[in-house]
Amino acid sequence: MPARHRPVATLATVAAAAGVSRQTVSNALNSPELLRPDTLERVQQAIERLGYTPNRAARNLRTRSSQLVGLRLDPTTEGTVSGLMDRFLHSLAESCRGAGLHVLLFTAEDVNDPLDGYDELLRSASVDAFVVTDTYRGNPQAAWLAERQVPFVAFGRPWTEPDATHPWVDVDGRAGVMLAVDHLVDRGHQRIAWVGWQKSSTIGEDRRSGWVDRMHERGLSTSRLSARGEDTIEYGRRAAHALLDQDGEQPTAFVCVSDTVAMGVLQAIAERGRRPGPDDLAVVGFDDSPAAQVVLPGLTSVRQPLEEVAVQVVRLLEDRLAMRNIEHPHAILTPELRVRGTS
Amino acid sequence: MPARHRPVATLATVAAAAGVSRQTVSNALNSPELLRPDTLERVQQAIERLGYTPNRAARNLRTRSSQLVGLRLDPTTEGTVSGLMDRFLHSLAESCRGAGLHVLLFTAEDVNDPLDGYDELLRSASVDAFVVTDTYRGNPQAAWLAERQVPFVAFGRPWTEPDATHPWVDVDGRAGVMLAVDHLVDRGHQRIAWVGWQKSSTIGEDRRSGWVDRMHERGLSTSRLSARGEDTIEYGRRAAHALLDQDGEQPTAFVCVSDTVAMGVLQAIAERGRRPGPDDLAVVGFDDSPAAQVVLPGLTSVRQPLEEVAVQVVRLLEDRLAMRNIEHPHAILTPELRVRGTS
Repeated sequence: MPARHRPVATLATVAAAAGVSRQTVSNALNSPELLRPDTLERVQQAIERLGYTPNRAARNLRTRSSQLVGLRLDPTTEGTVSGLMDRFLHSLAESCRGAGLHVLLFTAEDVNDPLDGYDELLRSASVDAFVVTDTYRGNPQAAWLAERQVPFVAFGRPWTEPDATHPWVDVDGRAGVMLAVDHLVDRGHQRIAWVGWQKSSTIGEDRRSGWVDRMHERGLSTSRLSARGEDTIEYGRRAAHALLDQDGEQPTAFVCVSDTVAMGVLQAIAERGRRPGPDDLAVVGFDDSPAAQVVLPGLTSVRQPLEEVAVQVVRLLEDRLAMRNIEHPHAILTPELRVRGTS
Repeated sequence: MPARHRPVATLATVAAAAGVSRQTVSNALNSPELLRPDTLERVQQAIERLGYTPNRAARNLRTRSSQLVGLRLDPTTEGTVSGLMDRFLHSLAESCRGAGLHVLLFTAEDVNDPLDGYDELLRSASVDAFVVTDTYRGNPQAAWLAERQVPFVAFGRPWTEPDATHPWVDVDGRAGVMLAVDHLVDRGHQRIAWVGWQKSSTIGEDRRSGWVDRMHERGLSTSRLSARGEDTIEYGRRAAHALLDQDGEQPTAFVCVSDTVAMGVLQAIAERGRRPGPDDLAVVGFDDSPAAQVVLPGLTSVRQPLEEVAVQVVRLLEDRLAMRNIEHPHAILTPELRVRGTS
């Protein structure tokens, strides 16, 4: 592909092209009402033709804004498979583009301190706003940022502070698990087990409530069908073995709190010489990771609508940056079920 | 965790605290040699105590720099498992922090145009430099950016223009495949197949050359052991079946150009009632994806040292930004083999 070279346009070249002063170009950009309509149009045509974009630093100083949105990126956990951040980052960058914003990535020196890194960016006025993603930690960032009147939107609801009024977007994990239960009941399963996270995980318990409530709504028992543990393959493996080792009625299907845990369940099924799938033991995961798409025979999984999450996050950010006050701004989005070979 | 609140320091509050004029604070930051040592120290102590950080926009205008490094993020391909970008992004953001830089993400309106998005950022002076990652497309970005004297470093060597003098960092895929061949030969395999990408992929052919040359060095034949195709699970599956369907000698091991292709090979092995592993059919992938870590029985894979790639990319960026002229700046890093159950 040939390079498309043109000289960088400046206020001066636009002024020369339009036959006006630089002050007039500046007015066209900042106070267009001061210009005669035909002059304004001439300047705008020159801006368009030359592809002039005001220097970001100059514009920042004038508007006291950077058009940058900070997002802290923590290291991915090896041995887990979610792949959520990869998809979310692209979607967020894409949605930001439409709003004239860009995503600025930062990292923490101390990844265990949820506030680390925010202060420094704020003091250097490097970002206009933040997107906070690790709200499962209890989100101390929300109070910290709100106190400083820094615009931000959280991806993840304020689990521990339901009265918090900051903007947030979340996915309804409970509804996603209900989709999984309905899918399995419709395929004839009655003994559907839950392989979840520890009780201390609010997200894990929310997802679990979808299993409990929908099982009861469909007239099914949840007795002796529930396991709780860490987000590891090994836990999923052990939990599935323990559930299948039970005397009496054993589960015929497993709804898992994550794809990582589901991978362990698949491992246990293989170790027992059983087959994952609708004819033997069904398995459903959560997050529709790349691994779910490629593992044999394809893992049915709950998929978060991250593209729509990003759109809603940016919409709420724009409201905040424009000082539009919306009461208790938030959005809860419904996931969908991607059905594959394991169910 | 309690919020750590202190008012944001400004040039004026630092000046008041140090008992000097704002001009003196400015001199302390930009022309310290103009100040008496005791005055300079007093100002520096006030800056330290109040945690003053110069406003980025003001500094940008003064230094004509933004301290931002642009990186274009393209959508991940569903149905592939590399997970490379997730790991690289965190490592890059981390290395940038040490250099006082931040990563700015941007996306393309037309993802098929490798130049889309660069021009706009450049015109608004939003970034000081770029990191270019999709050099497998032939890297027209390099010529475009070099022509405009824009600092950039490529992750990926200039395959189609070996004489290009721009800075780049790459991983030696050929050496990684040689590690895989040595590992399999040392375990007693002689009929080791290559399941690669199409001939038009320079990266694929480079990796393949590691297989051809190391096989010959170890006195082994490569005859009727090579397949070429797309980066899909289905291609890997069909290629493995075809190689195992051959009359006469069949392969006992598969070295795959990617983990995605390796997933297809594993699928074919399962379909034939064979077992992946050292006792039957060995499989090695490339990229050490999250899926490699969780698929049964664990996929041996070549792992790119992305943390070190990021360190080297930032080191070369810093050289460019500081106008240090280094002849033909580049670094080639050696991957390692993560041995798991499939070999």
